[in-house]
Order: sequence, then structure tokens, then C-alpha cells
Amino acid sequence: MSASSAGSGELSLIEWIRAGTRAQASVPTGIGDDAAVVRGGSNDELLVTTDMLMDGVDFVVGTTPTELIGRKCLAVNLSDIAAMGGRPVAAVISLALPKQRGRELAEGLYAGIWPLAEEFDVGLAGGDTNTWEGPLVVSITVVGRPGADGPVLRSGARPGDWLFVTGPLGGSLSGRHLSFSPRIREAAELQSRVKLHAMIDLSDGLATDVRHLARESGVGVVVDARDVPIHADVEPSQADDERLQHALCDGEDFELLFAVAPDDGRRLLSNRDRLTPVHRIGEVTDGADCLLRTEDGSLRPLPPGGWEHALG
Amino acid sequence: MSASSAGSGELSLIEWIRAGTRAQASVPTGIGDDAAVVRGGSNDELLVTTDMLMDGVDFVVGTTPTELIGRKCLAVNLSDIAAMGGRPVAAVISLALPKQRGRELAEGLYAGIWPLAEEFDVGLAGGDTNTWEGPLVVSITVVGRPGADGPVLRSGARPGDWLFVTGPLGGSLSGRHLSFSPRIREAAELQSRVKLHAMIDLSDGLATDVRHLARESGVGVVVDARDVPIHADVEPSQADDERLQHALCDGEDFELLFAVAPDDGRRLLSNRDRLTPVHRIGEVTDGADCLLRTEDGSLRPLPPGGWEHALG
Repeated sequence: MSASSAGSGELSLIEWIRAGTRAQASVPTGIGDDAAVVRGGSNDELLVTTDMLMDGVDFVVGTTPTELIGRKCLAVNLSDIAAMGGRPVAAVISLALPKQRGRELAEGLYAGIWPLAEEFDVGLAGGDTNTWEGPLVVSITVVGRPGADGPVLRSGARPGDWLFVTGPLGGSLSGRHLSFSPRIREAAELQSRVKLHAMIDLSDGLATDVRHLARESGVGVVVDARDVPIHADVEPSQADDERLQHALCDGEDFELLFAVAPDDGRRLLSNRDRLTPVHRIGEVTDGADCLLRTEDGSLRPLPPGGWEHALG
Repeated sequence: MSASSAGSGELSLIEWIRAGTRAQASVPTGIGDDAAVVRGGSNDELLVTTDMLMDGVDFVVGTTPTELIGRKCLAVNLSDIAAMGGRPVAAVISLALPKQRGRELAEGLYAGIWPLAEEFDVGLAGGDTNTWEGPLVVSITVVGRPGADGPVLRSGARPGDWLFVTGPLGGSLSGRHLSFSPRIREAAELQSRVKLHAMIDLSDGLATDVRHLARESGVGVVVDARDVPIHADVEPSQADDERLQHALCDGEDFELLFAVAPDDGRRLLSNRDRLTPVHRIGEVTDGADCLLRTEDGSLRPLPPGGWEHALG
């Protein structure tokens, strides 16, 4: 879900919704994490996440290949399930299709949705298919199961924890944001080796998402500038500072950011045959500040990141 | 969900999606019922349903009170859960808000959503709140639990069964379609007294929805014209034929249509202190035809109902 991919107007609105929403025993974790934790029958916990993507905001019909639009709309939800350490079970898909090209668009979208659903064993459980005079809107909800140790929340990071990411960051908007692989398998593999204290997927960029994790955990963080892995998609001819800025703020990386105890961190780093690449990028502190340790060792506030929508 | 509330273009598209969607053990009932049946952990069955409602199609911003838009968007999903004989557990809510009036619209929508969620013990588990340049779109997904006897599908009607509805029909668009009460409690009460063979909620009108039930069950039906209860919202000054047409075809009644064995049907009719009003409206046959028995006892095809969208 995306309390994360929202601007300041949307964030204040989400806070308003969160404040007005009554706590319910059936929803032990609601607004404020990557997916909700819901108690179904017999106290089984489920993960539920949803994302709505819109023409002109998240993609451009006619420019973005329709198949990749469909793929991405499912992939962002799978990434949310991965961020909870879960496995997806089923998805429902709702479409508002422009009347003129409805059938053609739907076929394109499903050409991207079906293979990804198959790859990750997601049952497609129906939805709501509509046509209208407006632009394309795709809304997908995914239901998943947490791992054996229960859901991994944003709120479990502890002072002293080490922070890791699962891959290099930045430059995603040149194409990777449409074709990324949700880190479902990686999350499962990490869970089988270490105790994940907290996790979030990087949709808005490390600088913003690490703040979400810190805020929900009630901790501070220090990110080491020289340890942030920069993706090859970031133009190599740029100055180092500029390249770091891309890695911190571009967003849509859809790698996982997670916190583990130092012992577990060392275990992850020492294990050379690990399947999931991990990069230590900093540590959790007992303050409330989100800081960047620059090359010369000085500390400065993490630059604000993410993009902003104005809300009237 | 609404394979039902779709025109012929949308129906053929939904059939195309259904045909291309791979069966999965995790989704024993997918496209083609009011809600999907999904297997979570430990073989627990869940219900999942979703509906997307759009400005200019399902409501008109500026004309329809915003609070009632919000209420209805949740209520139609709860009606789908009722149609499966289930109880709702949690909902996720996604909004595409027009930039100019985003905050105001969101507040109005939630003013309608919150009380209904509280009335039916639905945990609000987050969602995705967006703004854009387009019209208002509301997409809600509800997760529920089936009753003790498992989900009530559309496909279980048997020749000889009696058909019932839970209330009078027609004229809903004069206002009731915005303020109806989803039949969650009624479905639970009926299940506690009789074995429900098949059930569907009346969103497109009895004439169309009984066809869905007949088709999924592989049976025919005969509806008795004189037994169809006509709602007081249908203009009393109209001719009887016209009034019946409204009851059969107006849609958005959100009453339940269900099939039970004749013995159970008699039990429902004889029990005067029942909490849920039921009206016997016909029976299930072993043909494939959907017929109307007119006042003079002759049989003719049920008039086609529902509304049609052209799909380019």
C-alpha cells in the first residue's frame, strides 16, 4: 500500500483517515505498513495490500507499453507482500477502462498480469471490469500469508540494528520501475536465515522510506553515504554527489530495506554463498533523527526525497 | 463483484479474462460468483470481493451526496459477502480523488464509510489514497469469512428448489440504491435455519441475476409474476405490467435471491416469527430456460434486464 508514495497533501489526508479509523481486533496492523495484517478465521493472520495506479500519474497510456502497466500494477502489490515477509495467495483486479480502447487495453494489461501471477503462484480471483469515459485506472488487491515467524512490520527496528538493502538503487525510472522483480523469494530466504526486525519496500526512495521505517519504529537512523549501492542505471558520468542523490531519492527501486541485529547482520555479510545479495547501508540509533554520514565522516540530515502532489 | 453489473461488451471481456485465467488450488471459486473463495493458511477459506465505482457511471459528484457515495461503495461489497453467506472481516479502500476537491471529497466519503463499517464490524485496514486530474474513483475490497457450512455459491441450485427473495423489488434508483442495508445479518439468520443451496445478491435486477444463478447452477427457473414482491418505491399509479417490469429489471435492490429445497422453503414460509422476511418467487427446473409464469398461468421468457455499456 502506499501511505508512502504520497505527497504532503496526501500524507496529511492519510493521517486524518488513520486518526478517524477505529481500531479493530480483526485488524492488528492497519494503516501505516506495507500491507495490513488481518485476522481471518481461527486466528490465522493474513496480509492484505492494495494499490491503485492511474493513467497520467503512474503511467501514460500510449507511451508506457500496456503489458508493462499490467505487470507493474500487480508487481507493486507483490512487493508490499514481500516487505511483510509474506507469500502472495490471490489477487483481485479492478479496471476502469476508457470506452474507446477498453478491450485492447484489457488484453494488454492481462498479457502482463498473467505471467507474473504464474511466476509467483498468485491465484487470480476475479475483480470488477468496467468501462467509462475517463482515463485508465487499475486497482489490484493482493491477499497473502505471513512467513512462519509472523508478519515483518515497519515498527520492529531497534537501536543498534544494522540496516540493509537487497540491491543497488537509483535510476529506476529509466525503465526498471516497470520490469522489477518483487522480492518475494528474497524475503523468504532472508527470513530462513535471520530474524528480520523490520522491513519496508523502497517505493519512494531510500531517503523517504527509511524515515517511514524509523518513524514507525520510534528510532533514528544513520545511513552511510559511501555504502549506499548505486545502480548502473544512474548515469556514471554524473558527479558522485548527484549519483548518491539519485540512489537516495529517485524511488521505485522496489528493493527491500530491513533491520537486523548486528550478529545477524554479520552472518548475512559473511555468508558468501547467499542467494540474496545484501548491502549494509547504515544502522539504527536511539534518537529520532534520520542522518546521512558523508564520506568525510560528518553527519547531516538525510535529504528529503519522494515526490509531492498538491492536494486542493 | 460484478460480472453481473456489466453490459454485453463487458460480459464478453469478462468471459475472455475468465477463459485465460489459470485455475489455482488457492482459489477454489474465482471469477463468476459474488465473491471469490480463497484458501489462506491451514486450509481456512476466505471470501474476497471488490468493486470499483466511478463518477459519471455509478454516481455523480455534486449531485449524489458524497457521504452516500462512500457508504454505497462499501455497502455493495458487503452485499457480495452476504450473498456468499459470509461475514465481513476487513476492507481496504483505494481512492483516486480529483485534485481540486480531494480533501473535501475524502472527508465526505469516510463520513459514509465509517458508520457502516462500524455497524457491520468491518476493520478498515488501509488502502491507497491518490489525487489526480481525473474524476473520482473509489475501489474497495472486502475480505470475509464464510459461514459454518462454507460459502454459499451461485452454482448449487437444484431442480425442484424453491426460489426466494429477501424483500420487495424495483424503484431502487429513486434513492434506496444509496442507502440500502446489506443483508449480512439476514444471510446468517437464514443459514442458521435452512440449507441454502445457492445465493446471489440482486444488483442488476431479478431478471438478470436469476439468469446468472441458473447459468452457474446449470438449471432453468420459473418466476411467478404474481409472487414477485413490488417495492413501494415503484410508482403505484403505473399499470401492473409496468410495475412488474420495474421489479424485474430496475436493479440495485441488493436483496438476496436464494434457492432451498421445498421442505426448507415450507419451513421458512410457515415460521411466522422469522426475523428475515422472505418471499417465494418461483422454482428451479431441470431445463435451461428462464421463464416467467404470467397471471394467466402461461409461460414466457423472462424479459432481458440490466443495462448495457458499449465497449469499443
